[in-house]
Amino acid sequence: MDKIKQVAIVGGVHGNEFSGIYLVKQYQLQPALVSRPSFNTALVFANPEAHRANKRYLHSDLNRQFKNTDLANATLTNYEQSRAKVLNAELGPKGAAKTDLLIDLHNTTSNMGACLILTQAGPFYNQLAAYVKMVMPEAIISRDEDHFAAADHALMCTLGRYGVLVEVGPQPQSVLRHDVLELMDRMTRHILDFTELYNSNNLPALPKQTEAFRYLHSIKLPMNEQGERLGMVHKNVQDKDYQPINPGDPIFMLFDGTEVYYEGEETVYPTFINEAAYYDNNLAMSLNEKVMITLD
Amino acid sequence: MDKIKQVAIVGGVHGNEFSGIYLVKQYQLQPALVSRPSFNTALVFANPEAHRANKRYLHSDLNRQFKNTDLANATLTNYEQSRAKVLNAELGPKGAAKTDLLIDLHNTTSNMGACLILTQAGPFYNQLAAYVKMVMPEAIISRDEDHFAAADHALMCTLGRYGVLVEVGPQPQSVLRHDVLELMDRMTRHILDFTELYNSNNLPALPKQTEAFRYLHSIKLPMNEQGERLGMVHKNVQDKDYQPINPGDPIFMLFDGTEVYYEGEETVYPTFINEAAYYDNNLAMSLNEKVMITLD
Repeated sequence: MDKIKQVAIVGGVHGNEFSGIYLVKQYQLQPALVSRPSFNTALVFANPEAHRANKRYLHSDLNRQFKNTDLANATLTNYEQSRAKVLNAELGPKGAAKTDLLIDLHNTTSNMGACLILTQAGPFYNQLAAYVKMVMPEAIISRDEDHFAAADHALMCTLGRYGVLVEVGPQPQSVLRHDVLELMDRMTRHILDFTELYNSNNLPALPKQTEAFRYLHSIKLPMNEQGERLGMVHKNVQDKDYQPINPGDPIFMLFDGTEVYYEGEETVYPTFINEAAYYDNNLAMSLNEKVMITLD
Repeated sequence: MDKIKQVAIVGGVHGNEFSGIYLVKQYQLQPALVSRPSFNTALVFANPEAHRANKRYLHSDLNRQFKNTDLANATLTNYEQSRAKVLNAELGPKGAAKTDLLIDLHNTTSNMGACLILTQAGPFYNQLAAYVKMVMPEAIISRDEDHFAAADHALMCTLGRYGVLVEVGPQPQSVLRHDVLELMDRMTRHILDFTELYNSNNLPALPKQTEAFRYLHSIKLPMNEQGERLGMVHKNVQDKDYQPINPGDPIFMLFDGTEVYYEGEETVYPTFINEAAYYDNNLAMSLNEKVMITLD
């Protein structure tokens, strides 16, 4: 039978996302909060130098450094590339990891509430999603598991045999909100409770159907040929993560006063709307479809 | 009679406060928006290098470099100290400025709405406050004019013969929100409209009494002797800028679960609650008293 023996809770993969950093500190001071009889829990501060600099990262995004080929590439030597190799040695190695479950704690400036992001598929994840949504109905389940094999997945959480992200917002970069910290703490401890019940074969009856959002693709801010931004996310969309965008709905406002409408053919559900960290790449939001997670 | 002949609208004193930067760009593309018959309007991007780096500042906070002694000190040579001297030459010199009115555009991560901050006293400011509050009732008037002589005031807006800050939030650093941009645009144009009416002696009847908040002092996050933070702003206070804090109200939550209560003897009104940029100095919020601006 599948057993989770080693869990890692990781904060501060991004140095200016404060909730995970402070939550890991709190858990270090009160280990009983994250101790359960059937597994060990490691607490990890992933990118302390970026936090000291009060930045997302020093040289490159740590949460994009965990592809197998990059971990094996000795010529990738900058700070985050080096941290990734160290974390892979400590918590991995990826593909044969000593960590059975990696919980990676993140913040977003978007109004996403407490979101559990699944980057791989399988019965463990389906039951986890059903459990978390059952005990924490305001939780949102987000799936992005169909786009890569685990080996090609660049995210930190793919180091673990199982791995999830806990993504909580809205919280500005470099700010610690009490309410957001509480949401992250609650979701994290529900995941640990689930794992304990899973290990001991004591899971309660779970709902057969759990609503989730499945990532489709991201869309960019309107730009000209020189790459200058010509507009911004429309105020009708701002803060409306998970609310439907229908064909013809306003989605951008150009600086010249022109409204731009959504031209897709299907209703979609946005996430990471106007996320600060995605301006580098001019990403305006991610689009998702609504799906059901079905337990057998 | 007092006449405002030269106005400067300044954006991007802080490189990661996007509204002013984009609003100045918009005004540059559509100068008619900020043109009025009785004065000229200059549009200034104060700290382009900090914006390029997506930071508040490169070397030191530009909005703390405008004391007379510092402007005259040739040994202060870092990027922002140099920019301050250049801006003083362009828009000042402070104390004998070619700019009659300087409008400095800022964002805060705090839930402050559209706030007009007055850093000096006098009938021009009182009438401006009364006008802005009359035509834009959701505007907040904030006063911080009693603590320094203008010569010792370090803020950019003190370069002008008159100077105000337009402070709008909540907006995360490095994000551009449509709704926040609109609020800033509206308040800025109301100030220009007032100036036109003031110049032409056509001000409408203004309310005799206008509510405002007067800065008292700032309070710090709870810290230990090593300077480590022991807690955070309490969720009951978060986002409640301008709402009363009474003696005995919870104000901080320590990481060990202890609530800390406000121990002052009077009701106070907080601003800049949990502002990201003030974590450097561990400032939790500013406290204010409610005052009335009275026109004769």
